[in-house]
Amino acid sequence: MFSPTLSRYLPILEWGRHYDRDTLSADLMAAVIVTIMLIPQSLAYALLAGLPPEMGLYASIVPIMLYAVFGTSKALAVGPVAVVSLMTAAALGQVAASGTADYISAALTLAALSGGILLAMGLFRLGFLANFLSHPVIAGFITASGILIAASQIGNILGIRVKGDTIIEQIETLWAGLDGINWITFVIGAATTAFLFWVRKGLKPLLLSWGLAPRPADMLAKAGPVLAVVVTTLVVKLFNLTEMGVAVVGTVPQGFPPFSVPGFDPDLVRALLLPALLISVVGFVESVSVAQTLAAKKRQRISPDQELIGLGAANIGAAFSGGFPVTGGFSRSVVNYDAGAETPAAGAFTAVALGVAALALTPLIHDLPKATLAATIIVAVLSLVDFSILKRSWNYAKPDFAAVATTILLTLLAGVETGVSAGVALSIGLHLYRTSRPHVAEVGLVPGTEHFRNINRHTVLTDPTVLTFRIDESLYFANARFLEDLIHDRVTQDCPVRHVILMCPAVNEIDMSALESLEAINLRLKDMGIKLHLTEVKGPVMDRLERSHFLQDLTGEVYLSQYAAIRALSGLPGVTPAVTLAVTAAGAA
Amino acid sequence: MFSPTLSRYLPILEWGRHYDRDTLSADLMAAVIVTIMLIPQSLAYALLAGLPPEMGLYASIVPIMLYAVFGTSKALAVGPVAVVSLMTAAALGQVAASGTADYISAALTLAALSGGILLAMGLFRLGFLANFLSHPVIAGFITASGILIAASQIGNILGIRVKGDTIIEQIETLWAGLDGINWITFVIGAATTAFLFWVRKGLKPLLLSWGLAPRPADMLAKAGPVLAVVVTTLVVKLFNLTEMGVAVVGTVPQGFPPFSVPGFDPDLVRALLLPALLISVVGFVESVSVAQTLAAKKRQRISPDQELIGLGAANIGAAFSGGFPVTGGFSRSVVNYDAGAETPAAGAFTAVALGVAALALTPLIHDLPKATLAATIIVAVLSLVDFSILKRSWNYAKPDFAAVATTILLTLLAGVETGVSAGVALSIGLHLYRTSRPHVAEVGLVPGTEHFRNINRHTVLTDPTVLTFRIDESLYFANARFLEDLIHDRVTQDCPVRHVILMCPAVNEIDMSALESLEAINLRLKDMGIKLHLTEVKGPVMDRLERSHFLQDLTGEVYLSQYAAIRALSGLPGVTPAVTLAVTAAGAA
Repeated sequence: MFSPTLSRYLPILEWGRHYDRDTLSADLMAAVIVTIMLIPQSLAYALLAGLPPEMGLYASIVPIMLYAVFGTSKALAVGPVAVVSLMTAAALGQVAASGTADYISAALTLAALSGGILLAMGLFRLGFLANFLSHPVIAGFITASGILIAASQIGNILGIRVKGDTIIEQIETLWAGLDGINWITFVIGAATTAFLFWVRKGLKPLLLSWGLAPRPADMLAKAGPVLAVVVTTLVVKLFNLTEMGVAVVGTVPQGFPPFSVPGFDPDLVRALLLPALLISVVGFVESVSVAQTLAAKKRQRISPDQELIGLGAANIGAAFSGGFPVTGGFSRSVVNYDAGAETPAAGAFTAVALGVAALALTPLIHDLPKATLAATIIVAVLSLVDFSILKRSWNYAKPDFAAVATTILLTLLAGVETGVSAGVALSIGLHLYRTSRPHVAEVGLVPGTEHFRNINRHTVLTDPTVLTFRIDESLYFANARFLEDLIHDRVTQDCPVRHVILMCPAVNEIDMSALESLEAINLRLKDMGIKLHLTEVKGPVMDRLERSHFLQDLTGEVYLSQYAAIRALSGLPGVTPAVTLAVTAAGAA
Repeated sequence: MFSPTLSRYLPILEWGRHYDRDTLSADLMAAVIVTIMLIPQSLAYALLAGLPPEMGLYASIVPIMLYAVFGTSKALAVGPVAVVSLMTAAALGQVAASGTADYISAALTLAALSGGILLAMGLFRLGFLANFLSHPVIAGFITASGILIAASQIGNILGIRVKGDTIIEQIETLWAGLDGINWITFVIGAATTAFLFWVRKGLKPLLLSWGLAPRPADMLAKAGPVLAVVVTTLVVKLFNLTEMGVAVVGTVPQGFPPFSVPGFDPDLVRALLLPALLISVVGFVESVSVAQTLAAKKRQRISPDQELIGLGAANIGAAFSGGFPVTGGFSRSVVNYDAGAETPAAGAFTAVALGVAALALTPLIHDLPKATLAATIIVAVLSLVDFSILKRSWNYAKPDFAAVATTILLTLLAGVETGVSAGVALSIGLHLYRTSRPHVAEVGLVPGTEHFRNINRHTVLTDPTVLTFRIDESLYFANARFLEDLIHDRVTQDCPVRHVILMCPAVNEIDMSALESLEAINLRLKDMGIKLHLTEVKGPVMDRLERSHFLQDLTGEVYLSQYAAIRALSGLPGVTPAVTLAVTAAGAA
C-alpha cells in the first residue's frame, strides 16, 4: 500500500497499520499518567528558560504530535527539558532581556533554527557529528548544567532574583539580593523541596510497606510534584499570600497553542546559530540515548537518522505554536514506558490532554507559587549532578579526566556554550595528540618460528644490517611525521644498517600526507645508502599505493610476508638468504 | 666541559668544538655564494611584504646569526621567504596601511609574536601541532600562495598598483589600473622575467655545452638574478628612466640593522595572534622539511623541537633588529648546501657579508627598478605553483583531493588565513569522519582450523545463536556509537542470537566514551536476554577495563582466544562445547 521509502520517513505508516483496541487502552493509560507529570514540569522549564509559563505547555503539545508522526521510538516523550531550557536561557539572554517581546520572539527563532539543523542533519545523514560530543564532555556538561540550574532557582525559593550565565554571576546577584529575602516564599520553597526529596527517597518504600504493588507505588511517587503544586497553590489562595509578596505564576492565557511565526532577522540568526547547533546536538545525543535504552528493552529498533528528522519536526512545530526548543526527556520517557505506552500514539494522547489543560485548567494555577516550580526543578536537576565521573575518569584515563574537568569548570565559570565547545575541542585535540604518536615496535625473529616480536619484550634474533619496524596503526597526517623522525633518529645512530623494513599488517590506511612521509623516508634512506622495504601490506592499502609513484621510486621491495623479507635480506643464523622468495612491488599486487 | 643539557639547547657548543681550517674555508665559500643570491631576494621579499627594501636585508642578518647558535641544521639558511612574506603582508594589511610607520611597527610585533610562539612550542615540545598541517593542505596552500604572489607582482611589472588579499581583489585593482600602464617599466619587467626564465631553463645546459663542470654551471645560473639587478639598474641610471616614471627602490638608509623594540599594544597583539600562529606553523613545517632532507644527505640528525627554538630565536632577533617574520628557505638552503656549507657558521659569515652590503652597497641600488625585483619574485614563486597535486590526490584518495581543492580555492578567494585554517579544519573533520565508522567484520570459523574470517569473504562455520564481530580499530568517542548502532541493528534483525562476541585483537585503546558504549551495549543486550563476551583483549586495554566497573557488570566472559570462546559457547559441528576453556574476567588478567 505504501512504498517502503515513504514509511521510512513516516514511521507512523508502519505502526499505524497494526493499531488495535489493546494498544489504544495501553497508550491512553500512559498518556494520563504522563500528562499529570508534565503539567508542573512544562511550567517549570518555561520558568527556567525565562519564558512565560504557558509556553512550556505549548512546547509540549504540537512537538509531541509531530514526533509521533516522524519519530521511531515507541516510548520517547518529547518536550522542554532542563538542560536544553538552561541553554535556551543562555542563548536568549545574549540577544534580549527576559520578559520582553523580543525575548519570546527569539525563543521561536531558536526553536526554528534548532529544528532546521536537526532536519538537515537527518536528511544529509550527518548524525555522526553527534559523536564528537564525547561521553566525558556530556557527563561534565550535564553535571555543571545541573549546578547552574539549581543555583538559578535558589533565587525563586528565597523570593529574590538570581541572574547570570556563570556560577560567579549567580553568586554575586544572590549575595547582592540577600537583604530582600521573602521569608514566606522561603518557607514554601524549602518545605516543597524537602517534601519532594522525601517523595523521591521515602514515599515509595512507605507505600510498599503499606502493601501497595511496586508499579502503582512508583506511579504515585512520581505524582508527588502534582500534589505539591495543588497544596501550595491552595495555601497561597487561602491565606492570600500574594499580598505578602509571594511570587506566583499569575494570569496564564486560556486556549490552545497559538499559531506563531518565528522571525529570521539576519543579525538574530547569526547570534543564535551556534547556540542552536549546540542545543540540537546536546538534545539529540540525550534523546537518542534514552530512546535506544528503552527500545532495547523490547528488542525494538530506532533509527538515529530518522530520530533527527523526528526531533527536527518537533522543534519546527514548537517554533510555529508558541513554544521553545524541545527534545526527548529522560524521566518523562521512562514514566511513559513504565506506564505501558505501546506506540507514539501515547504521545499524541498526552498532547491532547495537555491541550485540554491549556484550555481549561490555566485559571487554577494563577496562585501557584514560583517557589514550588523552582523546588521541582531543583529536585529534578540535582539527580543530574554526578561528581563521581571525575573520580571514575581519573582512574580510567587521564585525558578523559582532563575533558571532564575542563568541561565542568568552563561551563560553571564561562557558561554553557563555552563549556561544551571547549570540551569538544579538547576531546578532539587530545585524540589527535594521542594518535600523533603511532605505536611502532622494532621487531626481531622468534627463534625456531616464523613469528616476529618486539625486541624490547622478547628474546629474538636480529641482524645488525636489517632494521624492522612493525607499525601498529593506520598512518595519516597527524602521525606520519613522527614515523619520519623515528626512523631518521634510529638510522643515524646505527651505522651498519643497510635495510629498513616497515611491517604493515595493522596499517588500514595510508593517507596522502603519510604517502609523502614514506616518499621522504625512502629518499632520505637512499641518500644514506639504505634500502626501504615494506612487508604484509593490506590489499586496499596496496591498491592505493599502486595509484601513486611510490612503488616505482621505492629502493627496496614489497614482500608478502615479513619472514620472506628476512630470508631474502638477512644473514641471520638459520635464516638462509633466499632471493627467490622476494616479490617485486608489481608482483605483490 | 659543557653539560649535555646545555649543548642540547645550544648546538653551537657541539659543532663549535670541532671547528677547523677546512671547515672554515668551506663555510666561507658557501657564504659568498649565498650572499650574492640573498641580496636581490631579501629586497624583493621586503617589497612583497609591503615593507621598505632595507628591512629585507635586516631580516637576513641577526636572524641568521641566532639560528647559527640555536639551530640544529648544518645547511639551513634562514631569512625572509616568499610564502611567509605574503602571509605577513596579509596580516599587516588588516591592522595598518602599507607605507605607514604603524605598518612597519606591526611587522616587528608580528615577528616577535611568531618568535614567541615558536619558542614556546619548542620549550613545551609542542612540535607535534605542526602535524595537523597535512600534506594536501600545505601543497594546496603553497600553490595558491604562489599564484597570489605572482599576481601581486604583475602590478610592479606593469607600473601600476595591484592590491588585495584575494585573487578577485587583485584582478579588480589590476583591471582598474590598466589605463596607467608604464610601458618602459613593462619592457624592463617583461625582459627581466623572460631572461630569468631562460636562466633557469636554458643557461645551465648552455654552460654545460660550453664545457663548464656541472657545479659551477649551476652556481652561475643561480647568479642570474644578480646579473639582472646590475644590468637593469645601470640601464635606469644611464637613460635617466626614473624621470619617465619607472619606479625604483630609491634611497635606502646606509648602516647596520638598527635596534628596534616591537610594541605590544593589546589590540594589535589580539589582531596579529592568529596570523602569527599560522605563520609560525607554516614556516616551521617548510623549514623542518628542508632541514631534514639536507641532513639526510649526510646522515646527520636534526631535532625538530630544537629547530623550533632556533627559528623562534631567529624571529625574535628579527623583531629587535628592524626585520619581519623569517624562516628556513628552500632554494637558499639548497644553494648553501651545494656550495659546501659544513656548519651553521656559513650562515654567520653570510650575515656578516650582508651586514657589509647594508653598510656599503645600498647607495648602488638607488636606481634598481622595482620591476626587476618583481620579476625575480614571479620567477621564483611560479616554481611553487604545482596543480599536478590536484590530479595526484584525485587518483590517490578523494578526501585528500577535497582538502587540496578546498585549500587552493579558499586561499585564492578568501585569503591566506582563511585558506589554511579551513584546510586544517577540513583535514581534521575528514579524518574524524573516516574513523567514525570503525572497520567491523562479522566473522566465522574457517573449517578445520582455529582461524576466524569475515563471513562475507570466506566460507566459514557460524552458529546462529552466536554472533562474532571482529573490531579492527581502536574504539574512541567518534566511533563508539557506531558500534552501538551496528550491534543493535544486527541483533534486532536476528531472533535466535543468544551470545554476542566482540573480538578485540586490533583494539589498542578504549576511551571513556567507548567504555560507556560497551556498558550500554552490555545492558541493552541483557534486556534482550543476550550475553556479551570479549575475546583477545590486549594487555593494556584489559588493565584499563579492570579499573572500571565494566568487567563486573559484563553478562558474559572475557576469553583469551576467540577459539576458546567458540568452543565454550557454540554448538558448531566439530567444535565441542568445553566450558573448561572459559576464563573469567579476573582470571584473564
